[in-house]
Amino acid sequence: MLIETLCGREAAQTLALMRAHSPLVHCMTNDVVQGFTANVLLALGASAAMVIDDDEAAQFSTMAGALLINVGTLTHARERAMRAAIGSAVSAGTPWVLDPVAVGALTLRTAFAHDALALRPAAVRGNASEILALAGASSGGRGVDSTDSALAALPAAQALARRYGAVVAVTGEVDYLTDGERVLSVEGGHPVMTRVVGTGCALSAVAAACCALPGDRLTHVGAACAIMARAGEQAARQSRGPGSFVPAFLDALWSLNGEALA
Amino acid sequence: MLIETLCGREAAQTLALMRAHSPLVHCMTNDVVQGFTANVLLALGASAAMVIDDDEAAQFSTMAGALLINVGTLTHARERAMRAAIGSAVSAGTPWVLDPVAVGALTLRTAFAHDALALRPAAVRGNASEILALAGASSGGRGVDSTDSALAALPAAQALARRYGAVVAVTGEVDYLTDGERVLSVEGGHPVMTRVVGTGCALSAVAAACCALPGDRLTHVGAACAIMARAGEQAARQSRGPGSFVPAFLDALWSLNGEALA
Amino acid sequence: MLIETLCGREAAQTLALMRAHSPLVHCMTNDVVQGFTANVLLALGASAAMVIDDDEAAQFSTMAGALLINVGTLTHARERAMRAAIGSAVSAGTPWVLDPVAVGALTLRTAFAHDALALRPAAVRGNASEILALAGASSGGRGVDSTDSALAALPAAQALARRYGAVVAVTGEVDYLTDGERVLSVEGGHPVMTRVVGTGCALSAVAAACCALPGDRLTHVGAACAIMARAGEQAARQSRGPGSFVPAFLDALWSLNGEALA
Repeated sequence: MLIETLCGREAAQTLALMRAHSPLVHCMTNDVVQGFTANVLLALGASAAMVIDDDEAAQFSTMAGALLINVGTLTHARERAMRAAIGSAVSAGTPWVLDPVAVGALTLRTAFAHDALALRPAAVRGNASEILALAGASSGGRGVDSTDSALAALPAAQALARRYGAVVAVTGEVDYLTDGERVLSVEGGHPVMTRVVGTGCALSAVAAACCALPGDRLTHVGAACAIMARAGEQAARQSRGPGSFVPAFLDALWSLNGEALA
Repeated sequence: MLIETLCGREAAQTLALMRAHSPLVHCMTNDVVQGFTANVLLALGASAAMVIDDDEAAQFSTMAGALLINVGTLTHARERAMRAAIGSAVSAGTPWVLDPVAVGALTLRTAFAHDALALRPAAVRGNASEILALAGASSGGRGVDSTDSALAALPAAQALARRYGAVVAVTGEVDYLTDGERVLSVEGGHPVMTRVVGTGCALSAVAAACCALPGDRLTHVGAACAIMARAGEQAARQSRGPGSFVPAFLDALWSLNGEALA
Repeated sequence: MLIETLCGREAAQTLALMRAHSPLVHCMTNDVVQGFTANVLLALGASAAMVIDDDEAAQFSTMAGALLINVGTLTHARERAMRAAIGSAVSAGTPWVLDPVAVGALTLRTAFAHDALALRPAAVRGNASEILALAGASSGGRGVDSTDSALAALPAAQALARRYGAVVAVTGEVDYLTDGERVLSVEGGHPVMTRVVGTGCALSAVAAACCALPGDRLTHVGAACAIMARAGEQAARQSRGPGSFVPAFLDALWSLNGEALA
């Protein structure tokens, strides 16, 4: 299996497109990370709006450039609204992205995520445990902490990608992405990112923004991983812990340039 | 039409009253901005509490100095609780403020906001698209991003103010406020504020806190705009992007003095 | 009555255990403080997950090291999920902690908190007004702001502790903790902590994490108070207001060592 390394110049092109197009992402995400997710998108030049009533969510997903579905704090009510939004997004041709937080460990979200896959997300972003669980393999995950390495979940990611026509990203110390044919890897980031809530959830939102851009989707989602990793490294150098990391990270996303990515 | 400029000394007087009275604001706001909204109020010396059960919301709005209604993530359940809280606030003489986030673009909130106006808010704070939509004019808004200039929405603001007896604030690069008779303008702020989620929503919360203070309501709501604008300018000078802007902004609100406002 | 002062070396031992065990806390907390609560736990080396569907909450509280129940934005739906989670936690032997935000002032949460006590929390953490209300004494609290001093509520805390077998912490300028027999006091902290939303709620989450650790529960919950107080003092020295306090506080929790606690 050939694993390509994402080229920095490609990530820089995606970032330039992001700032030029300013995609509006309809974020149906968990209750914990909403502010941080919006600020990450805004720092990158994209826009975010959270709309959660069934009818409004269905309306809004046709106006947005992309729809993010994150099941972190799923409820039956939220699930109904997400189904309405996805249905409407699919009809309108709006790409949608699935973040299967803790799928495998908990029942409501696992059943929903499996159903949702049939509605063909543009991309899926999860850790190894989540991707293994989505693909039907067993997993020992406990919530958002993956207990499997990303590489171990790559075959599951490839199977999912082929079955549902999605870009599947398994993120961890090294991120692996596949559209079922090609495989990309993205290195980088910093361990302190695991001590800040929402970095993975925000990456999924950035991936959704990237799916709204014209061009190759696998490269764009890989660019989302690279953008977050580079900004994370910069922020880690300029901060003294997970607290000062957050403002430094948003500043780094804001000022990130092609040189830093290349 | 005469447009007065809000005098810095008046804004300073409002700020002094805020710190002396420490109004408690019952914030029924959207899920994205709750923490930031509370921190803005706390930094200014006010207090905030979010209470959302129907019965408790009705109880609490009689104990609070003001009630904020922000429809950003409206649901049918939240709408019921908001109606209960507004009804109770009106009976108790508690002033309430409406932030009509994305009204015009989405159906549930648009119908609710129109209904709610009949319950006579003390103030309404929105961008141009939202104020135009509330007044029944058409708008091309997409969520929280206004596509119309604030000045263009001033006639709509005046019509709303007269019809419902409210102070109406249309905010944008320049903010315009009216009680139907007088018109105030407030300049300032900084573009980075549009890259941080919740600055507009938090302004509405500060406007609500101001409506709890004794004195002229139009001046007080104008002071809310001026306080946020001055703190935003100070924070922009002391930060390197939207990430470091947030702590700098809260610090600036905390240490803002009459001199800086004048 | 003998009031012991918590020894710094004991707090340091609790902190070392926290980092070694990395307890996973199932946080069912209010909508306002979720991100901050998670970041506080992560900075201390613990983990956090918010799971709120009835069935999933019942599943997850058996996987977690501890369960936090905070009634700040209680609704009937959330109450059902909390009852399911507590029931499941009790069956599994997972310790759970009650934060009775604004109990006494508002009806739904007051009734629920009284019911919940019968399910024997490992610990209860509240301000004086809340602890007095829980114990059936009258109180003039207005939401999260306590109008009574912590010491005045100590007899109520002792009565609660004896009746329900819980550690009860009354926090204020000085914190008092009791298991019904012994009484500990913890001094410190900084007034700016009252100008940042969620410091009390996050303390309850840290107390929950501490209840997952092996050893004396009264000492551990006292250590939670001491850890937050010491980090708060450090952060206050390194910040210029409530905005810069937040990142400095999380950094201080991250880098806190036994020397600083002793």
